[in-house]
Amino acid sequence: MKPFIHNNFILESPTAEKLYHDFAGQLPIIDFHCHLNAKDIAEDRSFDNLSQVWLEGDHYKWRAMRINGVNEKYCTGSVSDKDKFLKWAETVPNTLNNPLYHWTHLELARYFNITDLLSPATAETIFNRTQEMLKSPEFSTRNLMRKMKVEMVGTTDDPADSLEYHLQLKNEGFDIQVLPTFRADNVLKTEDATTFIAYMEKLGTAADVSIHTYHDLLKALDQRHAFFHEVGGRLSDSGPDRFYYADYTDAEIAVIFKKLMNGQIIDAEETEKYRTSIMADLSRMNHQRGWTQQFHVGALRNNNTRKYNTLGADTGFDSIGNPQDSVKMSRFLDLLDSTDQLSKTILYNLNPSDNEMMLTMCGNFNDGSIAGKVQHGAAWWFLDQKTGMEKHLRDLSALGLIRHFVGMVTDSRSLLSYPRHEYFRRIACNLIGHEVEKGLIPNDEQLLKTLIEGISYYNAKSYFKF
Amino acid sequence: MKPFIHNNFILESPTAEKLYHDFAGQLPIIDFHCHLNAKDIAEDRSFDNLSQVWLEGDHYKWRAMRINGVNEKYCTGSVSDKDKFLKWAETVPNTLNNPLYHWTHLELARYFNITDLLSPATAETIFNRTQEMLKSPEFSTRNLMRKMKVEMVGTTDDPADSLEYHLQLKNEGFDIQVLPTFRADNVLKTEDATTFIAYMEKLGTAADVSIHTYHDLLKALDQRHAFFHEVGGRLSDSGPDRFYYADYTDAEIAVIFKKLMNGQIIDAEETEKYRTSIMADLSRMNHQRGWTQQFHVGALRNNNTRKYNTLGADTGFDSIGNPQDSVKMSRFLDLLDSTDQLSKTILYNLNPSDNEMMLTMCGNFNDGSIAGKVQHGAAWWFLDQKTGMEKHLRDLSALGLIRHFVGMVTDSRSLLSYPRHEYFRRIACNLIGHEVEKGLIPNDEQLLKTLIEGISYYNAKSYFKF
Amino acid sequence: MKPFIHNNFILESPTAEKLYHDFAGQLPIIDFHCHLNAKDIAEDRSFDNLSQVWLEGDHYKWRAMRINGVNEKYCTGSVSDKDKFLKWAETVPNTLNNPLYHWTHLELARYFNITDLLSPATAETIFNRTQEMLKSPEFSTRNLMRKMKVEMVGTTDDPADSLEYHLQLKNEGFDIQVLPTFRADNVLKTEDATTFIAYMEKLGTAADVSIHTYHDLLKALDQRHAFFHEVGGRLSDSGPDRFYYADYTDAEIAVIFKKLMNGQIIDAEETEKYRTSIMADLSRMNHQRGWTQQFHVGALRNNNTRKYNTLGADTGFDSIGNPQDSVKMSRFLDLLDSTDQLSKTILYNLNPSDNEMMLTMCGNFNDGSIAGKVQHGAAWWFLDQKTGMEKHLRDLSALGLIRHFVGMVTDSRSLLSYPRHEYFRRIACNLIGHEVEKGLIPNDEQLLKTLIEGISYYNAKSYFKF
Repeated sequence: MKPFIHNNFILESPTAEKLYHDFAGQLPIIDFHCHLNAKDIAEDRSFDNLSQVWLEGDHYKWRAMRINGVNEKYCTGSVSDKDKFLKWAETVPNTLNNPLYHWTHLELARYFNITDLLSPATAETIFNRTQEMLKSPEFSTRNLMRKMKVEMVGTTDDPADSLEYHLQLKNEGFDIQVLPTFRADNVLKTEDATTFIAYMEKLGTAADVSIHTYHDLLKALDQRHAFFHEVGGRLSDSGPDRFYYADYTDAEIAVIFKKLMNGQIIDAEETEKYRTSIMADLSRMNHQRGWTQQFHVGALRNNNTRKYNTLGADTGFDSIGNPQDSVKMSRFLDLLDSTDQLSKTILYNLNPSDNEMMLTMCGNFNDGSIAGKVQHGAAWWFLDQKTGMEKHLRDLSALGLIRHFVGMVTDSRSLLSYPRHEYFRRIACNLIGHEVEKGLIPNDEQLLKTLIEGISYYNAKSYFKF
Repeated sequence: MKPFIHNNFILESPTAEKLYHDFAGQLPIIDFHCHLNAKDIAEDRSFDNLSQVWLEGDHYKWRAMRINGVNEKYCTGSVSDKDKFLKWAETVPNTLNNPLYHWTHLELARYFNITDLLSPATAETIFNRTQEMLKSPEFSTRNLMRKMKVEMVGTTDDPADSLEYHLQLKNEGFDIQVLPTFRADNVLKTEDATTFIAYMEKLGTAADVSIHTYHDLLKALDQRHAFFHEVGGRLSDSGPDRFYYADYTDAEIAVIFKKLMNGQIIDAEETEKYRTSIMADLSRMNHQRGWTQQFHVGALRNNNTRKYNTLGADTGFDSIGNPQDSVKMSRFLDLLDSTDQLSKTILYNLNPSDNEMMLTMCGNFNDGSIAGKVQHGAAWWFLDQKTGMEKHLRDLSALGLIRHFVGMVTDSRSLLSYPRHEYFRRIACNLIGHEVEKGLIPNDEQLLKTLIEGISYYNAKSYFKF
Repeated sequence: MKPFIHNNFILESPTAEKLYHDFAGQLPIIDFHCHLNAKDIAEDRSFDNLSQVWLEGDHYKWRAMRINGVNEKYCTGSVSDKDKFLKWAETVPNTLNNPLYHWTHLELARYFNITDLLSPATAETIFNRTQEMLKSPEFSTRNLMRKMKVEMVGTTDDPADSLEYHLQLKNEGFDIQVLPTFRADNVLKTEDATTFIAYMEKLGTAADVSIHTYHDLLKALDQRHAFFHEVGGRLSDSGPDRFYYADYTDAEIAVIFKKLMNGQIIDAEETEKYRTSIMADLSRMNHQRGWTQQFHVGALRNNNTRKYNTLGADTGFDSIGNPQDSVKMSRFLDLLDSTDQLSKTILYNLNPSDNEMMLTMCGNFNDGSIAGKVQHGAAWWFLDQKTGMEKHLRDLSALGLIRHFVGMVTDSRSLLSYPRHEYFRRIACNLIGHEVEKGLIPNDEQLLKTLIEGISYYNAKSYFKF
């Protein structure tokens, strides 16, 4: 009997099969946005069992387990790795038609060559077999990455980070590029004065700049931005709930910053001005060094206080927030564009009802200077599943040029998530394949090859120039 | 020639057929949320003609008739039942591709065994044939329910309601459970002081509590809540335009309530506080008695003043309102969860652009204590049609666990609406069938049986425990 | 080999083919909303080359070219027509799966009988062949319209417009109706006092009314409205970002208008009142003369200041704005309906997440006086593409009666855009054809003929009565 994950998984037509196998399937992976730990790569970490590599820190799985009625102790608690695994195995059959079901079996197949369906019936065997395999050097962090043909990964890093592991990997000449991404979200966190001041202290130390004024802050950030550049960084990221925009003067910002550093509370208007200013100034650094900037907007985080107090952030209690304010987004991008300081930009939204607005917003700021200069990023987080990706690809086709799409990112904390690139490529080939079979796209080998290879690999290569 | 409503209506693949006929089709109906009149059931009402049972109070049909250019007198006016029916028959062919077209023919087929298409050409015959049938005891209210294998219905009732008919049915031992649902929307209606005070009077009388303070109000509501519980009620419902949330103190609420009872107008901030408080307190009662609470949010009601003044509410002039404010929804649910007083909760939205936000919001409050504790309810009202249900099922699969979905409700005022459960099951089997045929879900009989039987019947049974 | 644009392009089933070829394909075109230049028609303009007729003023194409990395000089600059064309030809293969790809090849096929795919390889030949053809009288403006069986076009005109070309065409007895549409957006533009006062001057001159008071303004507008009526106008249009609504008194409006005419700035509340008042008064004129009014809401215009300063408006820097405020929309329509002065109304939205809300809003104001009195218009601008149209048709079916839909408009500045009616008809026939083949719509020739012919042509004919 044909295994669940077979050669033509997701590929529903001869054209889809051809597109995937001839063009997409063999290309390397450029995973320009993820949350991997550079330390694990530098130290070439090994894993004791599947629970460790699969369930540790994976809030997607914890969330599904909780919805399945699994007690917290099996998610984040202190029961044994094996007990956690068995509870996950119990949950998996109940994730039918959810991306976790596909991811789980793709990962078992691609890394461990296991094509059995995970369930309570197979859990014990699978745990034991994978435990054996994980002992072999083949399954170290670096070898798992090589096995997936990873060519580059972009980690996500605070400006105050020492980047010691990135430097170590660079100096050592590791064959996969592990490059930092500048994510300065901490400078936007103005709600709590103590935290803000402590972060300024930390950042100042990292930059060797004593931060007292807004000007000092910019100097420190620019120093760190230059350092990231030296280490190979060519990307920034930013994850605010929404775009901020208010007119401001430098004098106003100086005063607001002073207030913050004095531990005073700033009001809504001041917050709007400060965030506009600092986000714009960070963007100007990106433009100056020829970087690409990413914005991930629309998440509503830490909704569950009871769980936040015991488990902290990023534990599976975040969700999709309100639709974006298109006017503020427009004004912010225009502020940068008006002085021709808008660098290459990728916009990601979490609320899918923003897809069309954001795609047309991108169009407003393409000035012809580079193909796909401002573009809509891959379906993000909750939208990174088959339905969401298909909607994204359709919207992107209809309202932009899919031809210049820089493609997939895992955005993942998990080392085993690379098959999501395969998943994306299969879904894209299937969708485009359908259009060809219906006669909506000409069956022209060269056109199709350019398109599929582009969104799988080459567009990212030529857009970012890492 | 194959009739329009045939054995495999909507089932487009062999797998879909198998799923429906083997697993879904024969199961009883748990219709846990509807607007049936318990009096009609208690008195086992009979109907004179199809107009009476079909058009009386059915604002879905009136709305379609008006869009079709039919004069109001044929909708809500005083022309004969037959004339109304003829105008409806004239409208039906113009509802092609609208759910009314499917519902109409499913209802003719299932209750009356009529498979002709309704149109001016067949109207006379169908009116006469059904008039004959409706004379038979087989077509009494209770027998129509039995014919559809209804096992339980959850009506929608005001806390001040005497529940006399529910009690009568209970005492008499009617074989179908007819249970009340506690819907306290009247305590939220603070816009008009006279109405508010009159309602407090009415509620106080029902509870035998003289309501002067907010504390009295809670006492009265709790007394009625306990009474509903005795009668078998295990569900509440709430239909505000949106979730309310503002921080408040008990002292503030006491003052605001006094103002209301003194006939004073309360401002927007006071309204927000009062509504947050009373909705939270109602929710805590649900938690205390182990009930499930439902929230139906996002309707914009009574848009047409001219018609409202002549016809009143629920006459076909309501519509979809703005997307929900996810922050307020989150804060409200978190307020309850923070003291572990969030009971089982089902969230329904009317604006489909809220689907994804609401589904991920549910995930935030699943703590593993029970499978599917907080979940997204069936596609509601305007969304309760094939496109809307398919979107709902896809979103539910992608962002939650469809495995634990408690399934369909008619939410209907019409006794003839039970075939909507069949409609839902066929649509779900068709959708899941496609996924199986495409290889996206394993063709594993046990997995599929559990899934389909669960969402058709068993999930509701084990979740609610009526 | 079958050409890309072939006889059954888009038609994926035998039923779809039948519906299109038997019912839709041969019907004339009523293009009741477009932005054609009446002068070009009156003067029966000829074109030197394809660049002139295709790229001049077409901001859809410029936008795609910029996303493709094409320098501005090839879009709006001063390079030769041929060089522009070559850059467009270079862009076309990169628009795969975008509506521009389909439009381009439909237009080449229908007007020029060219079925080659446009690309750098074919550009030269196509440019030369079409240049030859355009020299022939067959390719004059009027003959191009006749070739497409255009029966009526509704241009978009300012109240101050002299309509000289419409009058000329009318007097001359041109066989295609070219009727003006009253679009009074300039009276809403209160942001800049100088512009506002200058426009009042212009409008007053056109109406021969000296405008000093709000009353004068209404008198002038009504005079022009009557003039448009004489010339054959039966439609208005309005393109605000959103519906406005605030309670107001006539005295308040008189004062606000005085402020405006004195060059004073009015605040947000005054703006809301003034706009509510003037939009309502304009709507009352539409009702009085039995017109149909259109509202195009939800665009966010002129986002790119740098480009706006050099290129002006309507150059490809507009986008989709925020979802509509359903409450204000409801209150505005109700204001008119409450005195039974709501005329036939067509609502268009640009943000697709408004589809369902707007469709149900239409339902609120159908009073049975005429079929489809208030209805949802064709998928607009960014939504006027295959995915958008299919969503629109599905939503329209599910939440309204597609049977009464008045159908497609090009909304275009381009003389070559009429094949978009064919595109719409093919898409609609394909969608309905699928439903028939799946057994979701009965395969009843008369029902289907009525439906397809209605949305292609006859509904518009009977609804507007030009």
